[in-house]
Amino acid sequence: MNNQIYDLIIIGSGPAGLTASIYASRYGLNNFVLGKVRGGTISYAHKVDNYPGLNGLSGMEIMDKIEQHAKSLGGQIIYDPVDNIRRENSIFTITTDSEKQYWAKAIILATGTERRKLDVPGEKELQGKGVSYCVTCDAPFYRGKTVALIGGSDAACSGAVHLAEFASKIYLIYRREHLRAEPFWVKQWEDLETQGKGEAVFNTNLVEILSQAHISKTPGLIEVKQEPAKQNQISDVKAEVVGGVKLDKPYKGSDLLLVDGVFIEIGGVPGTTLVQPLGVSVDESGYIKVNDAMETNVPGLFAAGDMVDKAKMMSQMITACGWGAIAAGSAYKYFKGQQAPQQKGS
Amino acid sequence: MNNQIYDLIIIGSGPAGLTASIYASRYGLNNFVLGKVRGGTISYAHKVDNYPGLNGLSGMEIMDKIEQHAKSLGGQIIYDPVDNIRRENSIFTITTDSEKQYWAKAIILATGTERRKLDVPGEKELQGKGVSYCVTCDAPFYRGKTVALIGGSDAACSGAVHLAEFASKIYLIYRREHLRAEPFWVKQWEDLETQGKGEAVFNTNLVEILSQAHISKTPGLIEVKQEPAKQNQISDVKAEVVGGVKLDKPYKGSDLLLVDGVFIEIGGVPGTTLVQPLGVSVDESGYIKVNDAMETNVPGLFAAGDMVDKAKMMSQMITACGWGAIAAGSAYKYFKGQQAPQQKGS
Repeated sequence: MNNQIYDLIIIGSGPAGLTASIYASRYGLNNFVLGKVRGGTISYAHKVDNYPGLNGLSGMEIMDKIEQHAKSLGGQIIYDPVDNIRRENSIFTITTDSEKQYWAKAIILATGTERRKLDVPGEKELQGKGVSYCVTCDAPFYRGKTVALIGGSDAACSGAVHLAEFASKIYLIYRREHLRAEPFWVKQWEDLETQGKGEAVFNTNLVEILSQAHISKTPGLIEVKQEPAKQNQISDVKAEVVGGVKLDKPYKGSDLLLVDGVFIEIGGVPGTTLVQPLGVSVDESGYIKVNDAMETNVPGLFAAGDMVDKAKMMSQMITACGWGAIAAGSAYKYFKGQQAPQQKGS
Repeated sequence: MNNQIYDLIIIGSGPAGLTASIYASRYGLNNFVLGKVRGGTISYAHKVDNYPGLNGLSGMEIMDKIEQHAKSLGGQIIYDPVDNIRRENSIFTITTDSEKQYWAKAIILATGTERRKLDVPGEKELQGKGVSYCVTCDAPFYRGKTVALIGGSDAACSGAVHLAEFASKIYLIYRREHLRAEPFWVKQWEDLETQGKGEAVFNTNLVEILSQAHISKTPGLIEVKQEPAKQNQISDVKAEVVGGVKLDKPYKGSDLLLVDGVFIEIGGVPGTTLVQPLGVSVDESGYIKVNDAMETNVPGLFAAGDMVDKAKMMSQMITACGWGAIAAGSAYKYFKGQQAPQQKGS
């Protein structure tokens, strides 16, 4: 068994974690990355157009390049989710889901955010049966179908654009009065509306997700529906897959909208349960508090990416990468007692 | 004449400025970039290996990609150095060297740093005549020649590696006892020493740069030199080009080192003279003070890149890009009174 104590273990294999790996390798720190999702959340993005110098690629394509970059410098990535972290005598002990243990003098935590849930009846039961949190992953299953997309951010709008390559109709259900996406994406969405493919349902909340079976079994539910053709289809199938959504106010005369899929794009929440036992300070929304050096309040524990408090203002791939580099520089300083070398032009 | 008042003018065409352009264009801000040096300081780097996803390229090659990216989103770049900036009634007036005037409601300043000078006799007089601040630009002129390289950082070491592709001998003159470069570059330099191409002169300062003419005219100077072959060459030419450097202590018995070129790689200083009249707050080293939103103390004036106080800790291309994105997000908020949209997966 390998009882080696590493200088640094980076937890998380998204933009922040892999950039930290690139810098740690160049600094000569004995380090590796423990990952869960290859490429992190950004790898779900069907198109990333704001990472300077690598436009027009999918999130996965960009992250493949960054992973290759990290590996070319000797960086190691092990995909094995972390189960728990302990800290004793300034040494961190990491236990993974596969019950492997690793020891490190320092940790950079870059596990990002988890998809926010709606927390409505039917959501959990129908996940993977028409309820999805990943447009890029699941859009191709909805060719010619009608879907609901929940949210009003860039991710929601860009998700709608991608969905429109497959689905025939997209209802964008959003609790506010206006989209809060950047103008680029608002325009793309409006183009879908013009084409008759997109229909915005504003000031409205989704309160329940219903299965086809439930809808067909419930007398009176179908009668209010506006598409008779679909009624027959639903009645025939009676399956435990998504059949419709219930709204908190009527849309075009009905609070039931018959759809084949529900995509939930309402942001993320920082995944900090792993480090709460270490006594790490978080802000009122659960984001990890860091200073400009990306240090947490726990000595030897650094954090970067979407899970830090700074990311509430700007949660971007390019900022996550920058913070990952800073965290690695601070880890270097933690060992060497001196500032990390500046790499201008290197 | 165009009397348009732009939403935003970005001053500086390096990584921070062009990333700000990418974000500003996507936010739909009416903006353009005023640049001086194409690609900024990083474009002088002969190899950049730490910008995630684009490894193995020169600084200029990476910046070309980022410039194309910015332009593909409608970004405009005008190369015309800024002469002065005034602010009246919340509107900035920018006057360029070519006496053009532009007006903007907000400015992102990203003019980076200027090369630090040695401030020794002969430096100014022989600039462009053997004295260089840019290895990438001038290395090819020194094929088979002997050069001095001043500095001990990553930029100095990586510069030496590039110089070694042309020069036959490199004296690395550094005031400290050890290189302060990252291990990756220290090893590369040591390889040059092993090959007999590199020779480190530590604990030593350069005190004067001498022309060939000066050396040949000064009795007694040449006699101490260790390479007779070179003495003849010098005496023959007697030109007003670099002939040698004077050290503050003898190296191998002489304080005169005969060299054909002097490369000065001792870092940068923030170029803030442009904004000092606006009353912008700087720290004790002259770096612009910014908060996490990259706001300066002057309303509507944002700063990003190597010139901000945060960059003293980590002055990297990837961090400059991250800060440029944040500055653009803050400019958006300045206009819209709301937080910039998050572009995860867009």
